[in-house]
Amino acid sequence: MGEFDYIAWLRRNTADSRSVIVGPGDDCAVLAASGPEPWLVTTDMLLEGSHFVLAEAGARRVGHKAMAVNLSDVAAMGGTPVAAFVSLGLPRRPDAEILAEELYRGMRDIADRFGTAIAGGDTNSWPGSLVINVTLLGRAGPQGPVLRRGAKPGDWLMVTGDLGGSIQGKHLDFTPRIAEALELQRHANIHAMIDISDGLSADAFHICEESRCGLVLFAEGVPISAAALNMADGRSPLEHALSDGEDFELAFAVGPEEGEQLLKSQPIKPTPLSHVGVFVEESSLFLEEAGMRRPIEPRGYVHRLR
Amino acid sequence: MGEFDYIAWLRRNTADSRSVIVGPGDDCAVLAASGPEPWLVTTDMLLEGSHFVLAEAGARRVGHKAMAVNLSDVAAMGGTPVAAFVSLGLPRRPDAEILAEELYRGMRDIADRFGTAIAGGDTNSWPGSLVINVTLLGRAGPQGPVLRRGAKPGDWLMVTGDLGGSIQGKHLDFTPRIAEALELQRHANIHAMIDISDGLSADAFHICEESRCGLVLFAEGVPISAAALNMADGRSPLEHALSDGEDFELAFAVGPEEGEQLLKSQPIKPTPLSHVGVFVEESSLFLEEAGMRRPIEPRGYVHRLR
Repeated sequence: MGEFDYIAWLRRNTADSRSVIVGPGDDCAVLAASGPEPWLVTTDMLLEGSHFVLAEAGARRVGHKAMAVNLSDVAAMGGTPVAAFVSLGLPRRPDAEILAEELYRGMRDIADRFGTAIAGGDTNSWPGSLVINVTLLGRAGPQGPVLRRGAKPGDWLMVTGDLGGSIQGKHLDFTPRIAEALELQRHANIHAMIDISDGLSADAFHICEESRCGLVLFAEGVPISAAALNMADGRSPLEHALSDGEDFELAFAVGPEEGEQLLKSQPIKPTPLSHVGVFVEESSLFLEEAGMRRPIEPRGYVHRLR
Repeated sequence: MGEFDYIAWLRRNTADSRSVIVGPGDDCAVLAASGPEPWLVTTDMLLEGSHFVLAEAGARRVGHKAMAVNLSDVAAMGGTPVAAFVSLGLPRRPDAEILAEELYRGMRDIADRFGTAIAGGDTNSWPGSLVINVTLLGRAGPQGPVLRRGAKPGDWLMVTGDLGGSIQGKHLDFTPRIAEALELQRHANIHAMIDISDGLSADAFHICEESRCGLVLFAEGVPISAAALNMADGRSPLEHALSDGEDFELAFAVGPEEGEQLLKSQPIKPTPLSHVGVFVEESSLFLEEAGMRRPIEPRGYVHRLR
């Protein structure tokens, strides 16, 4: 199908949304300006062969991931997603139409779960590999935009879920922690938050850098996933939990009393909350293991430009 | 440089904007919700080899085009651009850093001219060709979002500038008609508008489809560019002006009295306004040439998925 047929298909398959005044098919989408909450905007590009292997993952899971990584960014700000904009660079091949539809269904399924309209996009074909770009708009949640800065020495670092070994499947199939981030704000004042895309140690260090402080991670506190325990590649399960990317769990800073309370009450069950560290004055990252504290490098996956 | 260094470079080079509360570097950008005007959102993906030849155009002009095509979409809605989000898929090559900076400078120059912040993005490297995606947010102008629907039989179709032969350079170097679209709204009630990306006849027909009417184009009224006169490829200059894509001029519908007035007063000088057609009841496209009226196909460039 040509570009215009795909837009027609999108229009038929776009759910109504109170926020979307004009959806796909005009020069721009139009979103209502209602409410005083600031807007959150995030964008992520997924590239075939770099972020996913299409033949292994399948188009629907790739679509899921492309939407979910953006939803995870809105979760990391404590916000509510509103509308997504999807650009595709589709490889020229006989089943491009099926590929486009499967990608879209994967995106749509997870977007629908969080009341997010796919309100526009741009579809292209080209001789290269599959490229998907999603830009997601959301509104700030009850505590306003929860930034990476705001952690204070003495604050606890806590995480949702368990960590490591996402390569075994979670990096494709994860559920973004939108609902959990909203629920957490009902129970505690979140000082800073990030989603774990580069690995716990690297992402926790991003909070440190923005908050101008340091962090002691507790080896015994890190929730290690079954996938990390099964990696069997010579690195320890703890190493995987500390430095594997794409867990898409939340790491956040709270005052110690509220942290204690969250740990006890576990308000986002069945998702566990763990106490994995404490922020300190000194601007470095430390790991405390068996009573010993040593500085560590904030390792994690860094995309390099060459 | 790695992804994080590029974000640092972006942060240093991002102009302050009243609308941007938090710029590049957190999980999401944060935009102020100020004012009742609806938001406009558009996104365009440019693919190397399909939309531009990097070696011919140069990175800075490619960056200009990637930003300008989105600005043109906001112009087509009669709006004011606010903030752009840029995703890059950079080929792995020794000068990737210079490429990224030149692209960014091209984007930044034209964004700055229209007070548009580059407020976020996503930078990746991969083995494939260059991919640029820009998502642009703007606010509706004084007449609200100007859609493609709204043209009425009897309305005039008018265009800014002159048309055809954009392949000779204008498709890379054009200035989006943001200022002109805002000025026009001070002089006339714009019933419908589009930017000419697929070619005058194709884009005018998009207005017809959305407005559920037809159009008679006047061959003698179409403003033919010098580039179209110089094409010398066997097709007439008029054919080029009617069907070449990427002029990025505006085509809009106004009532006949206001059209007459605009034609006489030329309120957006030095950019000319031309009267190129009249909308009719019958849902077809016609060309009137030397007093004869005949149906024509709405030709123009259609991206195909295979």
